[in-house]
Amino acid sequence: MDIEKYMQELGSRARTASRAMARASTAQKNQALAAIAEALRSDREQILAANREDMAAGQENGLEAAMLDRLELTPDRFEDMIEGLEQVMALPDPIGEITGLKYRPSGIQVGHMCVPLGVIGIVYESRPNVTIDAAALCLKSGNAAILRGGSEAIRANQAIAACIRTGLSRAGLPADAIQVVETTDRAAVGALITQPEYVDVIVPRGGKGLIERISRDARVPVIKHLDGNCHVYIDDQADLEKARQVTLNAKTHRYGTCNTAETLLVAEGIAEQVLPGLAGELAAAGVALRGCLRTLALLEGRIEQLTAATEQDWFEEYLAPVLAVRIVAGLDAAIEHINHYSSKHTEAIITENYSRARRFLTEVDSSSVMVNASTRFADGFEYGLGAEIGISTDKFHARGPVGLEGLTSRKWVVLGDGQVRG
Amino acid sequence: MDIEKYMQELGSRARTASRAMARASTAQKNQALAAIAEALRSDREQILAANREDMAAGQENGLEAAMLDRLELTPDRFEDMIEGLEQVMALPDPIGEITGLKYRPSGIQVGHMCVPLGVIGIVYESRPNVTIDAAALCLKSGNAAILRGGSEAIRANQAIAACIRTGLSRAGLPADAIQVVETTDRAAVGALITQPEYVDVIVPRGGKGLIERISRDARVPVIKHLDGNCHVYIDDQADLEKARQVTLNAKTHRYGTCNTAETLLVAEGIAEQVLPGLAGELAAAGVALRGCLRTLALLEGRIEQLTAATEQDWFEEYLAPVLAVRIVAGLDAAIEHINHYSSKHTEAIITENYSRARRFLTEVDSSSVMVNASTRFADGFEYGLGAEIGISTDKFHARGPVGLEGLTSRKWVVLGDGQVRG
Repeated sequence: MDIEKYMQELGSRARTASRAMARASTAQKNQALAAIAEALRSDREQILAANREDMAAGQENGLEAAMLDRLELTPDRFEDMIEGLEQVMALPDPIGEITGLKYRPSGIQVGHMCVPLGVIGIVYESRPNVTIDAAALCLKSGNAAILRGGSEAIRANQAIAACIRTGLSRAGLPADAIQVVETTDRAAVGALITQPEYVDVIVPRGGKGLIERISRDARVPVIKHLDGNCHVYIDDQADLEKARQVTLNAKTHRYGTCNTAETLLVAEGIAEQVLPGLAGELAAAGVALRGCLRTLALLEGRIEQLTAATEQDWFEEYLAPVLAVRIVAGLDAAIEHINHYSSKHTEAIITENYSRARRFLTEVDSSSVMVNASTRFADGFEYGLGAEIGISTDKFHARGPVGLEGLTSRKWVVLGDGQVRG
Repeated sequence: MDIEKYMQELGSRARTASRAMARASTAQKNQALAAIAEALRSDREQILAANREDMAAGQENGLEAAMLDRLELTPDRFEDMIEGLEQVMALPDPIGEITGLKYRPSGIQVGHMCVPLGVIGIVYESRPNVTIDAAALCLKSGNAAILRGGSEAIRANQAIAACIRTGLSRAGLPADAIQVVETTDRAAVGALITQPEYVDVIVPRGGKGLIERISRDARVPVIKHLDGNCHVYIDDQADLEKARQVTLNAKTHRYGTCNTAETLLVAEGIAEQVLPGLAGELAAAGVALRGCLRTLALLEGRIEQLTAATEQDWFEEYLAPVLAVRIVAGLDAAIEHINHYSSKHTEAIITENYSRARRFLTEVDSSSVMVNASTRFADGFEYGLGAEIGISTDKFHARGPVGLEGLTSRKWVVLGDGQVRG
């Protein structure tokens, strides 16, 4: 198989299909989503069987347990997948909305119309349910998509792809609007991300290594976040109970998510009051602490799982029950620390002081900034986007959780009555 | 001079300055703009003298007349430059605006805050007034900027740069917020566009060759348009007088601008009625026509400056008194022609038919789509942006004329009261 040629064909078909998708009505797109759900239901047994084959092959190839867990399509996950489709059906269609139509002194009326980006390339790993999630979001936003899942999930992904084609055709939309790459050859990714003539944007979902490679090699824009080194800063005018609850939730609610806190900053004025108890609770929850020198001095002998933090710890996304702890002079030092070490994902301040809250929101340069709330809220569903295609820590185009709107653009609409420029 | 190292120093200083700029108040930014205007006024004679030296060197080096014209800083242009500064002062400050703060079921309140992109790199040619335009827009939008003007304008640009530094310092802002590259070495451009750690976006302004090179080699996002192959389509339900006025304005108002019409499409049902007269008027204005076979047959013997169009003509941005003319079956053929040959800049339909106007707006995939208005309106000032840093024919981030808003991003703001995720 000539991968380059194969991917060009996919790209060319996607580009053609994207024109029909841009014109598709809301009713037609929702009809396609419903028909895909129906096809998934009737192909349920084949899809689960294909997934079992993927699992068996994965075990044979020595895939690690975490990977196998993500790969597995349990009956519950299968139902969630269909529910996800129905949620996307219920979302308002962003396409075609015209905003801000205003008259100009020349007499023309100028506004914006929301339009699809065109063709979205999505590169992801293991989880077969991403195939449906991504397809649904691209479809609803009037885009065409080329989906490239992990080689370990190829059988289930192909079975799901057949349902997507069926659903699109039943709604009178081009089956090529959502294509799932059929080869497991890695060269397909390289080809997909270097076809600006066919692909408008790449959304990589997966480990940091994958995303770094794609960002480096892509010849089209990439919507991405590399990691989530999130911070909680407890100000010396914090409410102690809020500080306690938010910190525990931000660190211990889930360890493997990108919006989990990885560093705790505490103002020196409140450290003695808040840190010993909080560190005890974190330790009791199984969290190991990496402290700055002052933290070590304060907690010495009181907390067992406490070691000295190195410079590298401040940069680290542990994705594990580990938390770096630093005592800082106050707000300025906290902001400076965050803007230097953070991955610009999500940061929270705990304070009752109005002016400090306002300064933290303005001066911290991250995609989400919070006052008295857990970093774990940084999520498309929690923010009310209805769904999330990914999170961006870049500032260009979309920033933070990216929903349907991030897959759209706005063109200018001008309505006139024969006006000419003088 | 080690260009790579020099540009890194500029980048590093810009990054540091960008933090102070992001925090700067509206009053401070306006004060800096006023102080720059004042400095320009008091350095007027030095700047004009530096420009005369640039002109003399340009003549010696055999610069073509059009380039020399753009290079010249006449007293009028000098006044326009200062007036431009005052216009940017009068624009509302987009930074810090919080929109859409809505309560979510969890009790958190979620919204967007407008923030600067960070450091903008601008690469441009000859016109020294771009130095002030670009500096003003970057400053007002809270960004730092590195400006790299053409080598032929180096003396005037350096004299203007001194005024910018003075103005920034007088307002208590870092003088490094707007830096003008001091070397004419071309390697400086290569370094500027490949520093993602220091530069967030590049805006190239100039010829197609320059922009193509920059887009190909840049390692950061580029806001750009390559060319403007704009279309006017006269539908068979067009008002004849509007068709006549808009076509003449779109083609003949100015020949060298990117929003000038380069191809005229005419529905076959109205061609005999509209084309002979319109072609005569165009010819009388000195416009040479390149017609399709049907156009040739219709106009044969009536218009002298008429030759056969080749396939290449439909792609061409003439930037000259030349217009390609094609008779098409109707709306579908017009949309197909435009989506195939257009550079996706600006297109206009002339029609009194409601449904066709609506379809044209929806289905034409260009950054500006117009009904009964001249393509010449595609411009930041005409659209009410107050100013324009450039035009984008890409869909990612900004599309069409780009004003202050295109130099900003939106981060998420979350206000809570101790909420945690359950």
